[in-house]
Amino acid sequence: MGKEPIMSELQNAADVRLFALNSNRPLAEKIAEELGLPLSECTVSHFADGEISITINESVRGREVYVIQSTSDPVNDNLMELLIMIDALRRASAKKINVVLPYYGYARQDRKARSREPITAKLVANLLELDQIDRLIAVDLHAAQVQGFFDIPVDHLQAAPTLAKYFLGQAISDDIVIVSPDHAGMTMARRFAELLGDDVSVAIVDKRTEDTRENPDLTMPSMIIGDVKDKVAIIVDDIIDTGNRLTNSAELVSKKGAKEVFAVATHPVLSGDASERIQASAIKEMVTTDTIVVPETKQFDKLKQLSVAPLLAEAIIRIHNHQSIHHLFKI
Amino acid sequence: MGKEPIMSELQNAADVRLFALNSNRPLAEKIAEELGLPLSECTVSHFADGEISITINESVRGREVYVIQSTSDPVNDNLMELLIMIDALRRASAKKINVVLPYYGYARQDRKARSREPITAKLVANLLELDQIDRLIAVDLHAAQVQGFFDIPVDHLQAAPTLAKYFLGQAISDDIVIVSPDHAGMTMARRFAELLGDDVSVAIVDKRTEDTRENPDLTMPSMIIGDVKDKVAIIVDDIIDTGNRLTNSAELVSKKGAKEVFAVATHPVLSGDASERIQASAIKEMVTTDTIVVPETKQFDKLKQLSVAPLLAEAIIRIHNHQSIHHLFKI
Amino acid sequence: MGKEPIMSELQNAADVRLFALNSNRPLAEKIAEELGLPLSECTVSHFADGEISITINESVRGREVYVIQSTSDPVNDNLMELLIMIDALRRASAKKINVVLPYYGYARQDRKARSREPITAKLVANLLELDQIDRLIAVDLHAAQVQGFFDIPVDHLQAAPTLAKYFLGQAISDDIVIVSPDHAGMTMARRFAELLGDDVSVAIVDKRTEDTRENPDLTMPSMIIGDVKDKVAIIVDDIIDTGNRLTNSAELVSKKGAKEVFAVATHPVLSGDASERIQASAIKEMVTTDTIVVPETKQFDKLKQLSVAPLLAEAIIRIHNHQSIHHLFKI
Amino acid sequence: MGKEPIMSELQNAADVRLFALNSNRPLAEKIAEELGLPLSECTVSHFADGEISITINESVRGREVYVIQSTSDPVNDNLMELLIMIDALRRASAKKINVVLPYYGYARQDRKARSREPITAKLVANLLELDQIDRLIAVDLHAAQVQGFFDIPVDHLQAAPTLAKYFLGQAISDDIVIVSPDHAGMTMARRFAELLGDDVSVAIVDKRTEDTRENPDLTMPSMIIGDVKDKVAIIVDDIIDTGNRLTNSAELVSKKGAKEVFAVATHPVLSGDASERIQASAIKEMVTTDTIVVPETKQFDKLKQLSVAPLLAEAIIRIHNHQSIHHLFKI
Amino acid sequence: MGKEPIMSELQNAADVRLFALNSNRPLAEKIAEELGLPLSECTVSHFADGEISITINESVRGREVYVIQSTSDPVNDNLMELLIMIDALRRASAKKINVVLPYYGYARQDRKARSREPITAKLVANLLELDQIDRLIAVDLHAAQVQGFFDIPVDHLQAAPTLAKYFLGQAISDDIVIVSPDHAGMTMARRFAELLGDDVSVAIVDKRTEDTRENPDLTMPSMIIGDVKDKVAIIVDDIIDTGNRLTNSAELVSKKGAKEVFAVATHPVLSGDASERIQASAIKEMVTTDTIVVPETKQFDKLKQLSVAPLLAEAIIRIHNHQSIHHLFKI
Amino acid sequence: MGKEPIMSELQNAADVRLFALNSNRPLAEKIAEELGLPLSECTVSHFADGEISITINESVRGREVYVIQSTSDPVNDNLMELLIMIDALRRASAKKINVVLPYYGYARQDRKARSREPITAKLVANLLELDQIDRLIAVDLHAAQVQGFFDIPVDHLQAAPTLAKYFLGQAISDDIVIVSPDHAGMTMARRFAELLGDDVSVAIVDKRTEDTRENPDLTMPSMIIGDVKDKVAIIVDDIIDTGNRLTNSAELVSKKGAKEVFAVATHPVLSGDASERIQASAIKEMVTTDTIVVPETKQFDKLKQLSVAPLLAEAIIRIHNHQSIHHLFKI
Repeated sequence: MGKEPIMSELQNAADVRLFALNSNRPLAEKIAEELGLPLSECTVSHFADGEISITINESVRGREVYVIQSTSDPVNDNLMELLIMIDALRRASAKKINVVLPYYGYARQDRKARSREPITAKLVANLLELDQIDRLIAVDLHAAQVQGFFDIPVDHLQAAPTLAKYFLGQAISDDIVIVSPDHAGMTMARRFAELLGDDVSVAIVDKRTEDTRENPDLTMPSMIIGDVKDKVAIIVDDIIDTGNRLTNSAELVSKKGAKEVFAVATHPVLSGDASERIQASAIKEMVTTDTIVVPETKQFDKLKQLSVAPLLAEAIIRIHNHQSIHHLFKI
Repeated sequence: MGKEPIMSELQNAADVRLFALNSNRPLAEKIAEELGLPLSECTVSHFADGEISITINESVRGREVYVIQSTSDPVNDNLMELLIMIDALRRASAKKINVVLPYYGYARQDRKARSREPITAKLVANLLELDQIDRLIAVDLHAAQVQGFFDIPVDHLQAAPTLAKYFLGQAISDDIVIVSPDHAGMTMARRFAELLGDDVSVAIVDKRTEDTRENPDLTMPSMIIGDVKDKVAIIVDDIIDTGNRLTNSAELVSKKGAKEVFAVATHPVLSGDASERIQASAIKEMVTTDTIVVPETKQFDKLKQLSVAPLLAEAIIRIHNHQSIHHLFKI
Repeated sequence: MGKEPIMSELQNAADVRLFALNSNRPLAEKIAEELGLPLSECTVSHFADGEISITINESVRGREVYVIQSTSDPVNDNLMELLIMIDALRRASAKKINVVLPYYGYARQDRKARSREPITAKLVANLLELDQIDRLIAVDLHAAQVQGFFDIPVDHLQAAPTLAKYFLGQAISDDIVIVSPDHAGMTMARRFAELLGDDVSVAIVDKRTEDTRENPDLTMPSMIIGDVKDKVAIIVDDIIDTGNRLTNSAELVSKKGAKEVFAVATHPVLSGDASERIQASAIKEMVTTDTIVVPETKQFDKLKQLSVAPLLAEAIIRIHNHQSIHHLFKI
Repeated sequence: MGKEPIMSELQNAADVRLFALNSNRPLAEKIAEELGLPLSECTVSHFADGEISITINESVRGREVYVIQSTSDPVNDNLMELLIMIDALRRASAKKINVVLPYYGYARQDRKARSREPITAKLVANLLELDQIDRLIAVDLHAAQVQGFFDIPVDHLQAAPTLAKYFLGQAISDDIVIVSPDHAGMTMARRFAELLGDDVSVAIVDKRTEDTRENPDLTMPSMIIGDVKDKVAIIVDDIIDTGNRLTNSAELVSKKGAKEVFAVATHPVLSGDASERIQASAIKEMVTTDTIVVPETKQFDKLKQLSVAPLLAEAIIRIHNHQSIHHLFKI
Repeated sequence: MGKEPIMSELQNAADVRLFALNSNRPLAEKIAEELGLPLSECTVSHFADGEISITINESVRGREVYVIQSTSDPVNDNLMELLIMIDALRRASAKKINVVLPYYGYARQDRKARSREPITAKLVANLLELDQIDRLIAVDLHAAQVQGFFDIPVDHLQAAPTLAKYFLGQAISDDIVIVSPDHAGMTMARRFAELLGDDVSVAIVDKRTEDTRENPDLTMPSMIIGDVKDKVAIIVDDIIDTGNRLTNSAELVSKKGAKEVFAVATHPVLSGDASERIQASAIKEMVTTDTIVVPETKQFDKLKQLSVAPLLAEAIIRIHNHQSIHHLFKI
Repeated sequence: MGKEPIMSELQNAADVRLFALNSNRPLAEKIAEELGLPLSECTVSHFADGEISITINESVRGREVYVIQSTSDPVNDNLMELLIMIDALRRASAKKINVVLPYYGYARQDRKARSREPITAKLVANLLELDQIDRLIAVDLHAAQVQGFFDIPVDHLQAAPTLAKYFLGQAISDDIVIVSPDHAGMTMARRFAELLGDDVSVAIVDKRTEDTRENPDLTMPSMIIGDVKDKVAIIVDDIIDTGNRLTNSAELVSKKGAKEVFAVATHPVLSGDASERIQASAIKEMVTTDTIVVPETKQFDKLKQLSVAPLLAEAIIRIHNHQSIHHLFKI
């Protein structure tokens, strides 16, 4: 998705208001810059007792509003900020409220894995729909079915073209194998392989089905299905959280003879000591995006963050102009 | 889930009414027999112009009603039958309307795979919720996320224990490998492997990501990842529709040296000439359930249908008695 | 409603998208031609298992969409096609979804005639409203109260001016009597009489109140109230279904001395052998419209189909232009 | 519907609370007496500025509540009383709120007869559903389709058996003809005829279709279709409002040679000088029910009011006991 | 809020339709005049039986509609007029329905003061939201929290600047004290004091907490907290209903040595003999607005009515133009 | 509300499940002890990335569930915990979900004080209603109107009897004056005075209307209206947040000659250094309740916490038994 040639122009820009909440202001600023629009003014603060206080400092009557917020850690604060902002916008007579959610917190809780569990990803969808948003713009939802949790239009963007283009730019001369670190990621791995070329193969790390999120300290997975020997392995996931699954997979892949190991994931959650662990691992480079802010303390040398701002800006332009966003799904 | 020892007894059976619509009366009758309850009387017919006409022939005021219907082919007729029946039950003052949906038609349309597609599985969920059902009892939804399409309680049952028990009863002495015929089914394959034993391995048929449903005549998949040589291969899927994916996979598995090939799938859709093709294939036995009626003309020698009636009956009892259904998920 | 003189011009035609589903493509094409707009491209097909598959082939973002579909036989398929299309349009960010429903299937099931019956006409209204359509454009609903089943705007058009104009063009010199074939149709008969002239009288076929839809083979009605002798009788109904009521009425009217018998009905459902029966009856001409496609096999010599395309096109123009449609109710 | 033999007994009477609002306390008291239950205490008054003030004087927590109110003149006050009472009951934790509406005001505004009219009967249904009532018990709705304005259960009772039994008790020896005073009432007239016997015929007053409600002073209808000469004519309607239509019809029927003229209508609205006019007319007796209180000043000699209290009490018992109310529709 | 200098101009005036119902036509006419727009034609009348009949006499398709109605006495009739009008407008395809409610009847019933009371102010909000209005424009709601009863935008205007400007124009040279006639009004009194100047003090009439609305004839309050001696006292309230609280407060204030007593209230409900009582009291002038029509019979010499028409007209202009109404809250 | 004599007994205790989330486990345990019921088991934890994880460890099918949670600091986490728990309970087929909210966070944001503010208290109500709770049990909502933010039953309990009884037990022999620290609290002060005796007077701290929550460091209020000299002053508020308003008021009251100063507030939010400031102030004792846990680090000598557990337990019993809670509002 080359920005320069295809970037369309925003029509009726005076009708648009762009707001950034607290979770990912750097990304919001980049989007604003891409759009050539200023971020509108709003004050989002906390009272002494922790309650969120929001005031919007300019009129939004009759405007098409885009609110940019990732519901990353602290997820509950960021989600409530968003819900309260939407309430304020609606009561202030905004014409359309478009929510840009580069990272959708709670997206992994998308089904009842055990009896008497919540489906929090649906709860979040319900909260947003109840609050009467008009549209959701999201990036790489953990499961595509989360789109169906909504009845409003969802524009579901993919970071894969952006990420794949980066690897194509590296001009890797060896055979490449895309590795899925678990069973559920196999479809994603296959698609990423196809973006990189017809001759790119796939492999999968096979282990028992215990939920690794519940048990992040599970011992190393037992085996790899598929061939990685003498290949450049790229482990592909949507989210890096504790990084355990990723570093264990990298170790395994190395042990099985991969020449080099790269890792790719859209959303850098990087909980706990994930950064240290990845930095210390066999992974050569960890390529991710800026859907979540990685704070100074979690930055590490091997981390490469590509920006989704051009993607989101182009989507906003095309949505606002009533143009198809179809071609954004291609490299 | 051995029926005899654990089958609980239905409390306040006089409060329960069990109705069968037209799609799967044999299964409904078996469930009724398991429960020791008669099927209540309703007349579901078609006017000369094709409109469905329903009359319920006994009072349902204040009763807990269970309606059994699979939305299999003809899916639209079966779905409308169900929606109209629910409307009639609600207006007739039923206390609770529980829908037992052994097969959930349209479940595969659970996300927007391309621009401007519907999410019909969510539409169906909305139609049922709008019609004010109180609970859904389903078997092996295509994606677990479909539970989240509902805000009412969904009891999502699994046929895997029933199916796995069958194979355990076969006392297969060779090594077993569970084969997923596509990338998305890998998690299911892994779980099925674990039901059969700790030493059962998995493999996956790898092909490009074109939707085979859209293109059922795609040529044979190119390769298998994982080892099937000299093993008994069991190909596991949730739905057998045209059977192309299954027979192609079986051919490939055979070619790669599998000793024997079995196939397992919960829902026998068996569209077109699927029956003939499977009968003619390398598959030794096709094991499935009775969530969908297989008409006489589609029956074939290799087809083995296990009944989910004990599973559904036990679920109804436990739900009605306010008991946990937790243990139904185990063998 | 002469098309040429009053046909208004569609403003901002570039904002409009016109879609035809499968039930009545000829009428949709005529409407498109009247409007001078092409039908937009969408693919509506069936998978091997009978599930409907829809893809919209051009962007509808921000467009005012009109979908043309009659929910005639096969009613459930046609209704589901419509619901799925609406789901796809909404998710594809259409600005307004206007449904043009020339024939509203299930409209006759508009009340509980007996205990424990559904009210399917309301269910259909609920399904459409749930699916978030913005407006319904319908023709001759079986009961005007069906408008109230909706809370969205319903533009309820009448074919009577079109039909009456045809008879006025025949310059019938004898006395005319309008005959209602049952008690419920008496108001409609009276109104039709007034369109034809102040001196046109009415009569009614009187029989016991058993629902003839339930019992289409009931024996001939016993009597006529009102005078038909030596008059040209025009039997008026909204729907011809099995045609029993109509041919029985015609026979009775002939026996009572009518000179000639015509029949008029907006919606040619023509179930079973209705066509043969009407062709063989005392009826001289059966005048109807094209709200429902009459297939080749059901065409018959006495059948005259007038098109409602000019009426619907003019309505679409006026609705889109925010003009009153008031004058469409007059001849 | 003979009360003594079939009256069932109310089960769990301690769970039931019966409330009467201000519109029809005499009927409520009769129902209470039939049920052997006291009316529960609530204070419904008006502040000095006309606002309604309601306090419920006993706990309703967890009770099944029946509220009896006719939305007769003053219709807006009576409707708001009902809505406010429901709000209070819901907030006071009533278990079920059943509304008994012997007369449904605004029921005649059930469709858009002209452009830009409201459908007030649907609005009223929406207001009641919004207020979260659990069930509606109504008598002789103006159009049966009004049931479909609701999605909750509606028990739609008929006064016809009660009214017909009265005439059967009169042992009229002459031929009887049931006369519909307008086109829309023909179905009702036919049904009433059948309750009185197989040999009872029908006739209809034919006039142009102007809405007589809008123009109550329209001149006499011009003709009768059907034979009334030397018969006892019973004019049947659902509502007597201004009485114009009725007295004009009676005059016409007399002129055409009827021996005697009776009039029957469920709901005695009796607006303006209806009472005087009927008393002065050719009508021998005006038979109606007590769904609406006829105040002292509007009583007149020819008026006979039969009580629907036994019908409503029996319905309440059967509904509360979860028994079918099917047989209440028969004589 | 000086009208002349700041009055903005209405953009796209051709898109606006302004309707007045029956409660406050004089105010509606003044608003129309300020806006330079005609009132659109609608016929609101009553049938003989008290039911409201509404017909809108010009097309509103695609228009932005403003309906002006105060739900003052007769509150139920005025509220139903409004609800029915909204139903008609929605069905007639109005684009946006803005309700201007200068006086919000039932606003004082905004909480459960005792067990088993309704919260009628919320019921009214629900009725309006159910009827699908797009915006509410209200003046001095009894409690600001009533805004939160709605989820749609509410523009809550204040008459205080208009009222305060009047007193500033009187150039009162003595010390002024603003008196709250009860505990709940203390915040409002404080705010009014600040509008009149930094040196204006406040006082409060202290009495026991019985609800004076329920007991309008309670004896005189016992004491004043705060200093009124030798000051000009202005008693401030939002509503004058029976006037008891006001006249009792005035008497007390006089007794405590106030030089002169004025009274101010936005909404002149003036129930019962309020006018006579105020005229006979120690109050020198009763300043109020025209949110409610004061009929000829209730007019009295001491009554001064200031118009809120400039305020409402300016609000409508700014809302329609999508401009902030922020500055309307200042003097 | 003496617990021993009036405590009723819980009927059908086996149907009840009591759950405590993380915010106020000590209070939940006391309630459980009062009820003689165990707290049911649920696991509420956080994943590494901050997302909340909930599993309910025993079946709740068909049970009446009470969930106890205060949405105190960290308010967003506590609120999300509650919403997710409700989602899990509903999907796990709980019969009724009763939420016990001893402290309602965000309750002060109950109106738009300025343009373009949210009404977060309503948003929270919407979130709870959307999540389909059946009932809310709350204590001393900041404004009684918040009850009206809900359409479900709200049982609004008052701590005032508990708090007042404490002071009655102190047998204060001097004159008592109840002081409201701001204008809005005057009604509450008056009611508290009446609970302490007929001769207890009230006073009010008067200051300009800037929102002190926004500006917690505002300088000391300028004056007191009412007489505090030589009296025992009890400052009454519903919430102590930063404590500024309270300590400033206490200083002023002391300066004006009060003998002793007590402070009373239901909810001990105690943000920032409130504890230190109160301890250091003229206040002799700060009496509050345990609706919010005061952590060790915020405890201080002058703090006296009375438990609302007997009040909540008695409310739960009476609600569950379908008894009136009316008498809980009295001392």
